[in-house]
Formats: sequence, C-alpha cells, structure tokens
Amino acid sequence: MAQDNITRDEISRWFQELQDDITRQLEAADGGGKFVRDAWSRPGGGGGVSAVMTNGAIIEKGGVNFSAVWGLAPQNLVKSLSVELPANAEFFATGVSIVLHPRNPMVPIIHMNTRYFEISGGTWWFGGGIDLTPHYIDIADAAWFHQRLKEVCDQHHPSYYPEFKKWADDYFFLKHRNETRGVGGIFFDHLNDTAGFDRASRFAFVRDVGKAFAPIYVHFMKKNSTLPFSENHKQWQAIRRGRYVEFNLVWDRGTRFGLDTDGRTESILMSLPPMAQWFYNYTPPAGSPEEQTQRLLRKNIDWLRGPSESS
Amino acid sequence: MAQDNITRDEISRWFQELQDDITRQLEAADGGGKFVRDAWSRPGGGGGVSAVMTNGAIIEKGGVNFSAVWGLAPQNLVKSLSVELPANAEFFATGVSIVLHPRNPMVPIIHMNTRYFEISGGTWWFGGGIDLTPHYIDIADAAWFHQRLKEVCDQHHPSYYPEFKKWADDYFFLKHRNETRGVGGIFFDHLNDTAGFDRASRFAFVRDVGKAFAPIYVHFMKKNSTLPFSENHKQWQAIRRGRYVEFNLVWDRGTRFGLDTDGRTESILMSLPPMAQWFYNYTPPAGSPEEQTQRLLRKNIDWLRGPSESS
Repeated sequence: MAQDNITRDEISRWFQELQDDITRQLEAADGGGKFVRDAWSRPGGGGGVSAVMTNGAIIEKGGVNFSAVWGLAPQNLVKSLSVELPANAEFFATGVSIVLHPRNPMVPIIHMNTRYFEISGGTWWFGGGIDLTPHYIDIADAAWFHQRLKEVCDQHHPSYYPEFKKWADDYFFLKHRNETRGVGGIFFDHLNDTAGFDRASRFAFVRDVGKAFAPIYVHFMKKNSTLPFSENHKQWQAIRRGRYVEFNLVWDRGTRFGLDTDGRTESILMSLPPMAQWFYNYTPPAGSPEEQTQRLLRKNIDWLRGPSESS
Repeated sequence: MAQDNITRDEISRWFQELQDDITRQLEAADGGGKFVRDAWSRPGGGGGVSAVMTNGAIIEKGGVNFSAVWGLAPQNLVKSLSVELPANAEFFATGVSIVLHPRNPMVPIIHMNTRYFEISGGTWWFGGGIDLTPHYIDIADAAWFHQRLKEVCDQHHPSYYPEFKKWADDYFFLKHRNETRGVGGIFFDHLNDTAGFDRASRFAFVRDVGKAFAPIYVHFMKKNSTLPFSENHKQWQAIRRGRYVEFNLVWDRGTRFGLDTDGRTESILMSLPPMAQWFYNYTPPAGSPEEQTQRLLRKNIDWLRGPSESS
C-alpha cells in the first residue's frame, strides 16, 4: 500500500479533472452536442460546476456534475452516521456524478458517481459506482459491461467485484415494482481504512473507476446509436424513463438527501430524463422484446455467465 | 350534533357510492372517455376498485380510486402515530382518491381525497381535501375555486376554511423548489371527536367535501377545455407535470407510505401524469404568462381577495 499523504484538495482537484476529461471524451463521441458549464456556490460553503448537454446527436440529455462542498454537518447526516460526533461537526464532500439519457432507445442510460467524504474527527470514506439501465437488455452487452467493471475491480481486490456487484443489485432496486433499475453494475460506499486499506489504495481504485467510465459508455454510443428504432421502441423508452424517475425520486438516497438539505436542485435533478410517460397498468405483450427486458430486471443475475431462465 | 352510531362499513359504502357518482358526472362532462374499473385485493385484508380514464375528450388521464383495507397495522404507521398501541394493533382505512390530468393546458389538474381511518383501541379520524394545480394560474378561477371550498367549510365550522386552507398551502409545497404545487385548496387530517365534534359531524363535513368535487371540476372542464392553446403551452404543461411528479414522489406522505408498505403500486401511481418533461434550469421568459404563474406559486395568498404583488 502507498503511504497516506493525500489531501482532500488533491482528491477534489482530481475529480474536477475527471469531469473535464469525461466531458471531452463524450463530446468527441457524440459528434454534435457540447456540454454547457454552469458554476454555482453553496451558501454554507463550497460549490460546484454542472456540465449539461442538451440535444446532442446521441445524448438527448446528460449531466456531468462536479462539486466540492463543506461546512456544518446537516443534522440528518449526523443522525445517519454510526459515529459519535461533536455538536458542531464539520463535513467536506467532493465528487463527480453523471447520468446520460441517449436519444436512441437501443443505447442504455448510464450512471456514474465517484465521491469522497470527510467529517470532523478524522472520519473519511470513498463511495461511488457505475450502473447501466438499458431500455432493451442485450445479454451480450450486459456481459461486456460487467466484464469491464470486474477487470477494474480485480486490479485492486478480488472481493471488490462480487461484493460491489451485489451492492448495486440491492441498491438500484425499485421495491414498489419488485424490479431492478437495469442490469446493475458496481456500487460501493464507506470505503475507508479498514481491512488493510488506506486512503491511497482506496483513491487508486476510485480513480480507476472514474477513468473506466468514458470508454465504457463511448463503446455503447458507437455500437448502438445507429441501430434502427420505431415509435414503439420510443414509447417503451418513455416508460423505462418513468421508472428511472421513480427510482431517483423515491429510493435514491443521494437525491433525497440533497433535496432535503437544500442542495442545488437543478444539479441534483439533472439525472431526470428529458421526457417520461406513465400508462396505467402497462404490461408488455407476451413474447415481446419489452417483456424479455422486464423479465430480466431482477437481482442476482450473474451477467458474466448470462442469465438462466430458472435463476 | 347528530348521534354517533355510524359504522365503518357505512362510511366505506358511502365512499364507494361517491366513486360511482363522481365517475358518472365526469364521464358525462367529458363526453368521450369512459372509466375502466379494475378490482384488486390486498393480501393482508381488503382491497379496492381503481377507475381509470385514458384518452378522454377532455381528461387525458384520470383515476378515481376507492379502497377499504384492513389488517395488522404496519410498523411504520404505528411509529408515526402519537398514541400507545398494542403490539398486534389492527387498522382499517377506507377512502376515495382522485387525480385528473386534462389534455388542454388551460384546464387545471385537480386532486381530491376523502378518507377514514380506525385503529385498535377506539382511535379514529377523517382526512382529505381538494386542491387545484393550474398549468396557467387564472386569478379569477382560483378565487372561484376557493369560494366554493369556503362555502362547503362554512356550513360546518367557521374555523374550517382558514385552518384547512393554510394546511393545504403547507402540505402541497415543493421544499426543494420553494414553490407550491398550485393554488392550494383545503387539506385536513386527524379530524376526530375533539373540540365538540363527533363522528357524525365530521362525516357530514367529509360527505359535503366529496359531493362538492364533481361540480367544481365539471365547471373548469366546461369553461376552459375549448380555449385555444399552442405547442408552447403544451411544453409548459409538460414542465408543470414534471413538478407534479416531483411533489408526489418526493413529498406526498400518502404516496410514500403506500410505496413503502406494499400498497398497490399501479393504484398509487395513477396520480402521475401521462407525460412529463424536464429541462435543465428552465426559467420562463420575463413578462410571460408562464413567469406570472411561477410567481404565484407561493404560500399564504388570500385567493378570495386576490394576490397582491407585495404579499
């Protein structure tokens, strides 16, 4: 393990460079859209830069958010932590958060987050992950995606992929629909200096997750954005986008925490799709590709081997 | 006050008749759409009938839900009550819940709810309300709407309208946007046998609220559904519908409680609009009707007198 002389400013600077690097790669792959940057500051301390693409050639709506905020720790944050804290605990949080909604329903929605957190008294951790939400699940695409994530994880610890894959299954789950948001990916939180790790080794992992993101999504942009689609496919995309809205507003802890603590609403809700539809009690026709996708929206599928019908 | 010999079955039957009565009046006013009924049962006890209109002449998507459910009180319900309850407390809940999304952006969205609740040990209460969410706020329409509600309230108690009007302002509020959902209306909960009231007098009030609903909305259907509108108006409607989604999924206690306790998802989410849109950081042009509406989405406007610019 490397020695732990990494500062929060160093981590924050790296995240801001990651935002620049990812927006450059996505713009190049999109070939039409540009990210528009919007700097904001937080009254209690810190701020961020939202980079938003609207009506790109491939990306219909996408946001790549950077933020570094600090100040007095909100009471509901303090309550949610299991550590004892002084009354006037201070926090520091920095990260990059991305959601991309493509125009073509054959291109999946993707989400990525890398974040670092500190709180008075020496507590710190990293969190993050990448997960994929295809409107139409392509089993080979899902296997390829999970293989890329496993390679990133395996370079750091053999337990990372299986543990963080399961965590994503459990986290990106719509309890009220009994369905997953998509084919999952990896999700991790509270990665600190336990179990022989230190800040440098955790940061090295999080950097690799961050660097893996753009090449993974550019692969899907190139491969799927020229596939033909019909009005029928667009309608199913609108329904799946509705489920994305439901997950983010009902279950996503980051979204709810942000909305509840006077976070910057427009940056938090950048994750919402450009358009969504809701039909009462919609059920995809038997044997349709939509029904096949619906059947695959479940936990504990080993995408590296492919789903078995009995699993 | 009338004597209190009213049973929960009587209340529940009245609510079911109210559902029938309202769907008949709305179908007659719509002149095209029909409500399709869908009966469902709850594994733990009871069930309901969802009545849904899709693609009516005036109502693009609307639901009139009846339910009567009972069984073991869910733990998070017991925790939310301030009364002491036995470990195996039983609950009974019945009500009618309505949301109507019109096609024409000049017709407001409306919501109505009447409900009755009982829990082991003799605790009971009524709740409900009616509130209006115009895509474009017409001050005269808002005044007319509040006048109708005040008349219903005043027949029962002089404190009802001012108290329940304020409650609606506070309840139908998007904290993360610092805006109200619409022009409010009345909202009430936990109406029980305190302050000289009894079950009969509370029920009489709730019945009058229920009976007032259809004539109020039919008035707006007739008056506004033939007004001309443009693509621009439709886009603003889609943005306002997005805010409706945000309120219902993030802040509405009934929705969140239902989704969290294995309620019937499709009946709960009947309230969501047929379609919604999200644009990053959208701000209506200065001096536009959209900006005027945005400025009026705030608490504590006395709609009976009309908003003052300084309020």
